Amino acid sequence: MAQVSIDSERFSRRFEAFSEIGATENGGVNRPSLSDANLEARDTLVEWLSEAGLDVRFDEMGNIFGRREGRDDDADPVLFGSHIDSQYNGGKYDGVVGVLGALECIEALNDAGETTRRPLEVVAWSNEEGVRFQPDMLGSGVYCDVFDLDYAYAREDKDGKRFGEELERIGYKGDGPCEAADLHCYFELHVEQGPFLEQQGLPVAAVEGVFGFSWLNVTFEGQANHAGPTPMDMRHDAFVATADVTRAVRRITATEGTDLVGTVGSVDVWPNAINVIPERVEFTLDFRSYDDAAVDAAVERIEREIAHAAEREGLDYEVEQIMRVDADPFDRDCIDTVVDAAETVGCEYTRLVSGAGHDANYLNKITPTSMIFVPSVDGISHRESEFTEWDDVVTGAEVLLEAVRTKAAE
Amino acid sequence: MAQVSIDSERFSRRFEAFSEIGATENGGVNRPSLSDANLEARDTLVEWLSEAGLDVRFDEMGNIFGRREGRDDDADPVLFGSHIDSQYNGGKYDGVVGVLGALECIEALNDAGETTRRPLEVVAWSNEEGVRFQPDMLGSGVYCDVFDLDYAYAREDKDGKRFGEELERIGYKGDGPCEAADLHCYFELHVEQGPFLEQQGLPVAAVEGVFGFSWLNVTFEGQANHAGPTPMDMRHDAFVATADVTRAVRRITATEGTDLVGTVGSVDVWPNAINVIPERVEFTLDFRSYDDAAVDAAVERIEREIAHAAEREGLDYEVEQIMRVDADPFDRDCIDTVVDAAETVGCEYTRLVSGAGHDANYLNKITPTSMIFVPSVDGISHRESEFTEWDDVVTGAEVLLEAVRTKAAE
Repeated sequence: MAQVSIDSERFSRRFEAFSEIGATENGGVNRPSLSDANLEARDTLVEWLSEAGLDVRFDEMGNIFGRREGRDDDADPVLFGSHIDSQYNGGKYDGVVGVLGALECIEALNDAGETTRRPLEVVAWSNEEGVRFQPDMLGSGVYCDVFDLDYAYAREDKDGKRFGEELERIGYKGDGPCEAADLHCYFELHVEQGPFLEQQGLPVAAVEGVFGFSWLNVTFEGQANHAGPTPMDMRHDAFVATADVTRAVRRITATEGTDLVGTVGSVDVWPNAINVIPERVEFTLDFRSYDDAAVDAAVERIEREIAHAAEREGLDYEVEQIMRVDADPFDRDCIDTVVDAAETVGCEYTRLVSGAGHDANYLNKITPTSMIFVPSVDGISHRESEFTEWDDVVTGAEVLLEAVRTKAAE
Repeated sequence: MAQVSIDSERFSRRFEAFSEIGATENGGVNRPSLSDANLEARDTLVEWLSEAGLDVRFDEMGNIFGRREGRDDDADPVLFGSHIDSQYNGGKYDGVVGVLGALECIEALNDAGETTRRPLEVVAWSNEEGVRFQPDMLGSGVYCDVFDLDYAYAREDKDGKRFGEELERIGYKGDGPCEAADLHCYFELHVEQGPFLEQQGLPVAAVEGVFGFSWLNVTFEGQANHAGPTPMDMRHDAFVATADVTRAVRRITATEGTDLVGTVGSVDVWPNAINVIPERVEFTLDFRSYDDAAVDAAVERIEREIAHAAEREGLDYEVEQIMRVDADPFDRDCIDTVVDAAETVGCEYTRLVSGAGHDANYLNKITPTSMIFVPSVDGISHRESEFTEWDDVVTGAEVLLEAVRTKAAE
């Protein structure tokens, strides 16, 4: 077998060029789903996939596929990739590393003149980030039959523009159906978005699964009165109760499950005036763990805390669990394939569980799946300052290449 | 001396008619400063003041005065009134009770054919509520030389319209200078906006002074990271620190000074997303007491709590005291005059300190001042559901009348 290897310089050149598309002043990118910058990124990717000799198509959700024939072209293909849409003023590594890393694997195989037994398909999923159109992972979600196409098309951004219309506007509403083909397996290379790899000084991780999570919307409703003449014992302060619950999140995460995390991320206060007692607060809770029982216990405990806080302040309240997703273990064989690939590459590695959701979660429903993580410096993600050492990106792509080669040979 | 008494029916008729101006569906009024509804209220008041035989004028700040000659017309007049602008969708009693109550005092004197020794002046101050143009109490503030006229004219609403231009637009920019005349004293009848009178089952209070207060703006700045992969011990969560400080406000008010109140009223969170750790929170603190030392102690303690919360979470922070107003005791003799008036009227009464600021605060700087409170049912104010029993409003006007007659006889 010929030497097959990632060309760090070519990969880097493409990555730098791609990072210019929708570049922000502070070193990030602003390429939200179906924006003009996202269109330019799509066109660039399609051009590069074609130049690499792939047969490029996009489906009715705008998911972009590039296919490389195998020796046995009727065999189920190995699919690998990620996404190229970004957060508003997000980082340039998130998603892109997985898509351009997949392209670089193809180039490496081309250089070596190696044809795999199974066909290979590189993919860039539409609307992974849920910032312009909610929910996130919409392209892979329709592909894996989690969402209906009509539901996806009807998603609106804050200006009332629909996903389906915007997809048509930028010219990426394909003719082909968005539905799962028979696949052999799926791999996704991605930045960790957490601190563990950097803390441990390791370049890659085989991802064993993804945290389950629960999202709650909470509303407290009290009484807006003047902050001066209203004595403390006559208040019905919706924000004081919110503060109580926020403190309780820390108590709960300190005592329920070692990997449990909890966050109050969004908080809106009415009437939000310096001299008026808050009448109404709407806020969100996010609990995550790889242990579903820990998530359920946290939800149960926080619901009691919400009730107690409301009782103390004399408030009405509502709690709604808007999302509950179970922990999602990846395929044992695919995980082992990544581990073996890291051994072959000769890099240090560990096994990790992902706290964040990925397109791989949905793919895992329909085909054996695993992921490869490379470090996020300071654990930072979804921000312009997101950074990964280039050598680690290259190592991640090398592991991806070996994992794909292994599975494509089966 | 002839019988001089408030005509409850006439007063009520006018109050009901006035409440129709800018009336809201839920029984309140929407007459923010210099709005078209405020103009209609001004025109109605001017008409009624004129019909009552008063010499009406308005100054360059749009403060409206109605003068009734005294037997000794060179003597310093007794000034009494309040304001007729409202909160957005506010209550119909706030301010109006004091202005129409003052007019009713004039009518009662007219009915009895009584001419006081000193001239009487009824006043309606401009822009008492600081909801459209900040700060509040702008008309009385310029009158009492707290603010410059140019400063007042340059205040902008959220659409960028200036106070001076809007005053001219509605035709209430008068020629006369807005500056304090020589006054004998000032009285203001107002709803309590707190619960004490209702709790004690009393119709009126002689107001002995107004709470001092401190307003702080606080900013916490941490790090926005993904709520999933970021472990609890690596977080720099600006909202958790805000919750800590909010709890500390309750601890401080429970232990510093018996009348101390503290409120976190306005809270803004960035990026305010369900799955992102809050990077930045800006919030306000409002501490009030009649004991200035208690306010200062509260500010000192909360500043330490803010520093500790920031240290625990690893945040940057800023604290700015944007306003510090000392407690304001009213004139002993004017307070006694109100108490004597209540005795004369034969109603039950108490002495109270106001938690809220009033035009009377500024008048107190330039002339002997006191106020008369009538109950606010459930302590509610600044809301459409603001309510005072009509009999209590009438009792308040009777006390005002007696207090004004006493001082006007001096």
